[in-house]
Amino acid sequence: MATIEDVAKLAGLSRTTVSRVINDQPYVTEEKRQRIVQAMKDLGYVPNSSARRLRSQKTETIAVLLPRVTNPFFGNLIEAMEQKASEWGYQVIVCQTHHSRKKEIDYLQLLKTKQVDGVIMASLVNDWKDVEPYLESGPIVFCNEYMEDASIPMIHMDHKTAAYEAAVHLLEQGCKHIAYASGGPESHLGAMRKQGFLEALEEYGRPFLDELNIDWAIDVSDGQKVFHLIRSDFPYIDGVFTGSDEVAAGLIYEASSSDWKVPEDLAVVGFDNQMVSLLMVPSVTTIQQPVIQMADKTVEVLIQQLLHPGAIAPKRYVYPHQLLLRNSTKRREAAIQ
Amino acid sequence: MATIEDVAKLAGLSRTTVSRVINDQPYVTEEKRQRIVQAMKDLGYVPNSSARRLRSQKTETIAVLLPRVTNPFFGNLIEAMEQKASEWGYQVIVCQTHHSRKKEIDYLQLLKTKQVDGVIMASLVNDWKDVEPYLESGPIVFCNEYMEDASIPMIHMDHKTAAYEAAVHLLEQGCKHIAYASGGPESHLGAMRKQGFLEALEEYGRPFLDELNIDWAIDVSDGQKVFHLIRSDFPYIDGVFTGSDEVAAGLIYEASSSDWKVPEDLAVVGFDNQMVSLLMVPSVTTIQQPVIQMADKTVEVLIQQLLHPGAIAPKRYVYPHQLLLRNSTKRREAAIQ
Repeated sequence: MATIEDVAKLAGLSRTTVSRVINDQPYVTEEKRQRIVQAMKDLGYVPNSSARRLRSQKTETIAVLLPRVTNPFFGNLIEAMEQKASEWGYQVIVCQTHHSRKKEIDYLQLLKTKQVDGVIMASLVNDWKDVEPYLESGPIVFCNEYMEDASIPMIHMDHKTAAYEAAVHLLEQGCKHIAYASGGPESHLGAMRKQGFLEALEEYGRPFLDELNIDWAIDVSDGQKVFHLIRSDFPYIDGVFTGSDEVAAGLIYEASSSDWKVPEDLAVVGFDNQMVSLLMVPSVTTIQQPVIQMADKTVEVLIQQLLHPGAIAPKRYVYPHQLLLRNSTKRREAAIQ
Repeated sequence: MATIEDVAKLAGLSRTTVSRVINDQPYVTEEKRQRIVQAMKDLGYVPNSSARRLRSQKTETIAVLLPRVTNPFFGNLIEAMEQKASEWGYQVIVCQTHHSRKKEIDYLQLLKTKQVDGVIMASLVNDWKDVEPYLESGPIVFCNEYMEDASIPMIHMDHKTAAYEAAVHLLEQGCKHIAYASGGPESHLGAMRKQGFLEALEEYGRPFLDELNIDWAIDVSDGQKVFHLIRSDFPYIDGVFTGSDEVAAGLIYEASSSDWKVPEDLAVVGFDNQMVSLLMVPSVTTIQQPVIQMADKTVEVLIQQLLHPGAIAPKRYVYPHQLLLRNSTKRREAAIQ
């Protein structure tokens, strides 16, 4: 790799002059500056970036923290964020926290060590008080996950209303005993969903008994287990809100090789409108998040903060969801539009 | 954010002494060093990392370049790599190239600018001669994609044999006109697959006519289009090698709402053993890549290069695949184990 000495030699100038050009310092004639820039180009010389960054403190890189890319919701979110960021000349790096408090903090360090200019948090496992200090090193924006008391911009969906509507839909389809299947660490977003679900049950005078609460269901194989648990131990359960298309797919897949029918014996609602929710037979009733709009706004807000520090108020942007009615809940013909 | 002056003040020592401790320089008593370390801790002071990095040149960060995380093969690969890397204390950042030559080079710059210590390339769109110069800045390892003439370690599967076996399986199931559906930019890996496929056809004396070559199929909706193209224009086609479980799922989904039956009228082979290949009805015959083993070996080889520069020969590690026989090709009962 070319060194500063190589550049000096090729340009026929002193190391000090080269250093002045690299550091944008005065006292170098335009002619000498040109010779040095040309020599740097010819040699493929990149000024030591750590030194450059010491000066400019800019990396034009944004880190996006999320639990895992194998969840298609986050995969699609990243796709959209990346496209938007590249319109502004920013590159995106993806950091998986796997819901680990330590990993989340480790990746936030990228901000402190100036390896990235700003951070988007699409999930949050630490307490806000442990995240807040990193704001001194650069802007952080929430997308998807949110925290009532955080003093940063938040872009998200109204998960409470979404879950409420899904539960009302199941109730209107005649379901009497609806299980709530979720999983992963407790989050604000998760708590909001649960709250919406419970409000619907209360409104319809349905009690939420212990056995309706399943808190370990994350993926397809969990969905399969949920089906067998319901069928063997609580066969009166006739509806499931899963909070996940993968769990819903597992339930439906397993039901198809049993004597139970979806939706007649068991109606199932997923979440996120993943491709699999369309491919399943029956197709899965699910909630569509406005992924692209949320991603675009998040990137826009973050970059505005980078370009005009302090100019952005810590506003909340709440985007509308859509309950997509499909065959996995079609118990009453008339109710499906 | 705390400054070096704050640390000096709290420790009751000079700025120079603090600077000596930060830079691991001598002439500081252990007692003073302890006071300064404690003051840094109390204030949450992080020595300017760019300066630190100038000295140590280590970030303990690995970048993984891949086309997109929404492809579950790459999602799973990243999961496994991250787990392995964290065992060694390395963090992983994910960089999506979207098959763009420019983005690939932009992310390789992370190596040149010392933002990462090493790079794993799970795909490659530039010519090797344009990637090679970055080796001067740090180690690069190929995983999944490979290049015969590249002088770096390569960890991959034998795609030629995998495609050959899949094609032989379709031929043995009685398929006479087998389409080859693929998509995306031409890659070495893609060329190898095609070669294996064509060798099988030749061995069985089947010609590969123009209409059998479909080169624009990447995702589920492409798979749906492929089905309609075959059904309307080339109904004698009775088998498809897709190179993608998503394309296979699209084909099968669309066939299920037509008068065609899979596998009787059209046998379909996917690739990668994604979850969807199991959930489809019929389930999809596919090729399983040894994702975890490849990821583990790749991270191990890269970290060995970081720890012992120059100690690793540019070896190739070829891992075995598995053809998983499922219902989407089950035309002849006896042939399925």
